[in-house]
Amino acid sequence: MALELIFPDGSAHSFPEGTTVKAVADSISNSLSKKAVAGKLDGALIDLNLPITESGAVEIVTKDSDDGLRVLWQTGAFVLAAALKELYPNIHFGQGAAIEDGFYYDTDREDGQVSEDDLETIAQRMQKLVKANAALKPVTLSRAEAFEMFKNDPYKKQLVEAAGDPIQGYQLGDFVDFESGVLAPSISVLNHFSLLSVAGAYWQGKSSNPMLQRIYATAYYKEADLQADEIRRQEARDRDHRNIGRDLDLFFVDPEVGAGLPYWMPNGATVRRTIERYIVDKEVADGYQHVYTPVLANLDLYKTSGHWDHYREDMFPPMDMGDGEMLELRPMNCPSHIQIYKHHIRSYRELPLRIAELGMMHRYEKSGALSGLQRVREMTLNDGHTFVALDQVQEEFKKILALIMDVYKDFNINDYTFRLSYRDPANTDKYFADDEMWERSQTMLKGAMDDMGLDYYEAEGEAAFYGPKLDIQTKTALGNEETMSTIQLDFMLPERFELSYVGNDGQEHRPVMIHRGIVGTMERFISYLIEMYKGAFPTWLAPTQAVLIPVNLDLHMDYVKDIQQKMIDAGLRVRVDDRNEKMGYKIREAQTQKVPYTVVVGDKEMADAAVSVRKYGEANAEEEAANMFIDSVVADVKNYSRNGESKSGDMEAELENK
Amino acid sequence: MALELIFPDGSAHSFPEGTTVKAVADSISNSLSKKAVAGKLDGALIDLNLPITESGAVEIVTKDSDDGLRVLWQTGAFVLAAALKELYPNIHFGQGAAIEDGFYYDTDREDGQVSEDDLETIAQRMQKLVKANAALKPVTLSRAEAFEMFKNDPYKKQLVEAAGDPIQGYQLGDFVDFESGVLAPSISVLNHFSLLSVAGAYWQGKSSNPMLQRIYATAYYKEADLQADEIRRQEARDRDHRNIGRDLDLFFVDPEVGAGLPYWMPNGATVRRTIERYIVDKEVADGYQHVYTPVLANLDLYKTSGHWDHYREDMFPPMDMGDGEMLELRPMNCPSHIQIYKHHIRSYRELPLRIAELGMMHRYEKSGALSGLQRVREMTLNDGHTFVALDQVQEEFKKILALIMDVYKDFNINDYTFRLSYRDPANTDKYFADDEMWERSQTMLKGAMDDMGLDYYEAEGEAAFYGPKLDIQTKTALGNEETMSTIQLDFMLPERFELSYVGNDGQEHRPVMIHRGIVGTMERFISYLIEMYKGAFPTWLAPTQAVLIPVNLDLHMDYVKDIQQKMIDAGLRVRVDDRNEKMGYKIREAQTQKVPYTVVVGDKEMADAAVSVRKYGEANAEEEAANMFIDSVVADVKNYSRNGESKSGDMEAELENK
Repeated sequence: MALELIFPDGSAHSFPEGTTVKAVADSISNSLSKKAVAGKLDGALIDLNLPITESGAVEIVTKDSDDGLRVLWQTGAFVLAAALKELYPNIHFGQGAAIEDGFYYDTDREDGQVSEDDLETIAQRMQKLVKANAALKPVTLSRAEAFEMFKNDPYKKQLVEAAGDPIQGYQLGDFVDFESGVLAPSISVLNHFSLLSVAGAYWQGKSSNPMLQRIYATAYYKEADLQADEIRRQEARDRDHRNIGRDLDLFFVDPEVGAGLPYWMPNGATVRRTIERYIVDKEVADGYQHVYTPVLANLDLYKTSGHWDHYREDMFPPMDMGDGEMLELRPMNCPSHIQIYKHHIRSYRELPLRIAELGMMHRYEKSGALSGLQRVREMTLNDGHTFVALDQVQEEFKKILALIMDVYKDFNINDYTFRLSYRDPANTDKYFADDEMWERSQTMLKGAMDDMGLDYYEAEGEAAFYGPKLDIQTKTALGNEETMSTIQLDFMLPERFELSYVGNDGQEHRPVMIHRGIVGTMERFISYLIEMYKGAFPTWLAPTQAVLIPVNLDLHMDYVKDIQQKMIDAGLRVRVDDRNEKMGYKIREAQTQKVPYTVVVGDKEMADAAVSVRKYGEANAEEEAANMFIDSVVADVKNYSRNGESKSGDMEAELENK
Repeated sequence: MALELIFPDGSAHSFPEGTTVKAVADSISNSLSKKAVAGKLDGALIDLNLPITESGAVEIVTKDSDDGLRVLWQTGAFVLAAALKELYPNIHFGQGAAIEDGFYYDTDREDGQVSEDDLETIAQRMQKLVKANAALKPVTLSRAEAFEMFKNDPYKKQLVEAAGDPIQGYQLGDFVDFESGVLAPSISVLNHFSLLSVAGAYWQGKSSNPMLQRIYATAYYKEADLQADEIRRQEARDRDHRNIGRDLDLFFVDPEVGAGLPYWMPNGATVRRTIERYIVDKEVADGYQHVYTPVLANLDLYKTSGHWDHYREDMFPPMDMGDGEMLELRPMNCPSHIQIYKHHIRSYRELPLRIAELGMMHRYEKSGALSGLQRVREMTLNDGHTFVALDQVQEEFKKILALIMDVYKDFNINDYTFRLSYRDPANTDKYFADDEMWERSQTMLKGAMDDMGLDYYEAEGEAAFYGPKLDIQTKTALGNEETMSTIQLDFMLPERFELSYVGNDGQEHRPVMIHRGIVGTMERFISYLIEMYKGAFPTWLAPTQAVLIPVNLDLHMDYVKDIQQKMIDAGLRVRVDDRNEKMGYKIREAQTQKVPYTVVVGDKEMADAAVSVRKYGEANAEEEAANMFIDSVVADVKNYSRNGESKSGDMEAELENK
């Protein structure tokens, strides 16, 4: 029976039974056929040389596509395992797979685990296999055959149990593996690969299971791509807030004491405190009333709010206090701020009523998902809720947005986009039921964006159940998009908590609630800044703003102490390096710690009432009058700038470009 | 058989069997006998007119003693119940008793509960009973008789069940009560009493039991004492931080949302934020390194620290996170700061290492013990731990003490005493076992106090298990003593967590840990300040520092706004009262809200570039140049003073004395 295959251009073609993707590619063009490594039938990857089993939409997967990379990485994982088996005959395998940017294989050796020291040896064996270019053969195993084949392999045996019958696999010489996904027709494609690292990983991700050694690797079809990837990885390592956090002693997380629960060391705490004070002052000046509300509440509060019904899997387990009381660590601050609103009868004269807090919250995240300051279980949100009459939505929305952009300017965040999310007009019954509210408020939000002359993307159907919203998307230093700020209208919570205000007419009205975050959680925001600044904080945020180094501890100490005191009196954070170390060592250390100003004082400086100032990242020092220097640092702080230069989102890159 | 009775002077006297306390008093002096209301045998109260049953130490309880008051109050509770029974025949009684400053009785009416509206009626009926002066007769009931007598009284029946057999009681006319303690021989002593309030109270203090109505009352033997008590109660009401907290909108606690979990309204939050920033800045300037550490930790941390073994009943229930992890809300911050210490290898050069934090903690308190901001379940402690070598203990102790006294000065806390607590020299085995540490450190603490010329009280046997300590006791506005600050040495936790530092000698040494609190928890400290200042905060702490009132909203608003902006630019918290209300009303309200400066502006002030300033608590306003006024408020803030006057711990009293 003939197969009817639909090509990507929509044309239908008839092929005889037993046709392969390779044959289809050949039928199209020779160059396409050369680049082909696999195919796709109805969106699922299939082997290049195996018969196509049914009619459907067919695609040729080439080397220059994402699917082509996936096939390469699946092939790489297979070859990695084959090489490991040759080197360590007693090795047991867990799972191997292609991931976002390469591949891995989990291993368990009876006689000493694989370590990063072994990577060179493993890579050589892989190269040998690739050069030998032995045939890579698709195989089909019955369940019984697979059991027999993997009877001494505890993890693989479990995978066989969970798999179907028969099982698809590949064979290279004596080595057989299954469930590896579709591989390339020949392992010769694996010419440009790199073994990256080894890390522990629990079998099937459960901490009660044995710890396996996961070998990470990547590969590309071209050497240039592999090198570009290495540069990108190095940049990611250099900017990784966890690495910088360790190097600059900003914070640490110790899973033994609590996964996802960061400890802020004095340096990191200084950055955080500075940001917290900045944002609170900014909000108070903008008409927000800051409050403190408890992190715990009776579980009933979250039943009323709906969190317990719809958000429970992200919440911590409730605590039974006896006496019938169940206390819950809050997952969000909104119900707390509603308590503040409800504490008084409110008049229209009080609206917009703006409640803000540095609100600590707790979210249950799986331990595997936790990462540095980016994904944590305890976080402090720069949170705010404003309560408005419906006809105030537009003005308040503009005011909030202006505040957000003002804050961005101070942190020099310039790369962001706006996404306005509406309800799906085709499915209005999926949303909170108040057509007038939706229509009017969506119009007001759009109008506000237009009034402010801002570009935005409109996303129908992306609104929350409870109201339309604006998300502000920023790019991280590594190019990932994330939501930094959000302004969300909420029609539902005012209803659930029966909020009201007394209007001009003496009647009770329902307010609209606006959830807004400016910089998000302290944890995530600071991880973002660390990566953006590459640890070289602008002067106002730098844990230490200046290090003072006397050339001679006996002769110049009094003068240095005098300058230090003047700087402290000016509100600056300044440290004297009075250790018995060489001056060059001290200067280098100050640069490593990315201190904005390294100040050296010797006879000449003392005689001139001056200081010798080396700005971070510059090779040379310049003499300045001491008072002028102090004034310039104070100005730096006041202007949220660094080293007297124009603010830059990426000081490090700017310095490197010099 | 004769009784041998020992008088308080130690002399022994023989009395015949059946002798009463009254007879003993008669034998001593007529005047003593007149004042006698009861007796004591071997320390236990006994009835004045019942036979003394055995030999022992006898005392006469007179009207002018504390025991005499107790007898009066027990008699009062009895008479209250008797009057209630006459008025409301269907009433059921819970317990009644003398308490610290009066007495109460718990009641449950089938037909409408007793309320404060009924107090006048009840008082009149009590007076009628007292005037009738019916005999008050001690009675003895068998258990069976008591059951029969109280068979329709559900609560009393339970009390009978729990009582012995026979049961002692008293009878007045038809009314019988038992377990009321020893009463006076006649209810005529109850001439000066006052019914105070009615409040709900769960039967036997359990929230699963029915709610009874508790009637509070007090009584004295002399009218003057009753009046003095009323003045004291009024003062306590006026200073009660819960009342002021409500009146000035500082905070609230809603047991429905969470008992012992305060919500800080914007006014209270401003006070708290100001204090938090003040104390953090003070500590940072004093060499502390501020950190943020998580409120949650793996329960194992508190097993290592010993809290879980010795302090569990004050801790929240652990949360099972799955994956074998139990998380616990921390009851104290010390283990967290130890994590900070342990994160690096420490050198002797780093000591003393001072770690501080505004650390949030959670303590399980019974719901009945909770009170406003004073007793809460979630609190933020001004906490600090310094790690020192043993020979640094004295200097560090002095430094901490100097900081504490410096802070006291800024808050104008003048009434405090020092208590130095040592281990019990007779029971050294009850303490952490390191004799040298104890001896040297106790000597150093004492030496420090002497060096600083401070008076102190030495309390042997009052030290903690883990080390000697200094407590600083302050008096609350209502005269209660409480520990405001503490400096505690700890030899144990460094041992349990195996802390070390590398000494000058290259060897590892164990540091001593010093726990210290300066102002304690924000919650308790601010409740203390509210009562001390009677809500009239000094300018730097006042939620609103000045209210600006334009005489005419049209004519003077621009000028007022201009002054407001200047004050905001000077960092002040200032509000314009632009409501359509009479000026007198606005001024009175600013005074009720205890705003330091009420500023009125009309034609004359505008013409003079001046303002008319009324300081809080003063009857008259004075005109001042606007700029001079602003400068004076700024100076006020800077000097931690109020209204330009010398700081006073009790501004309110000072004003009242004028």
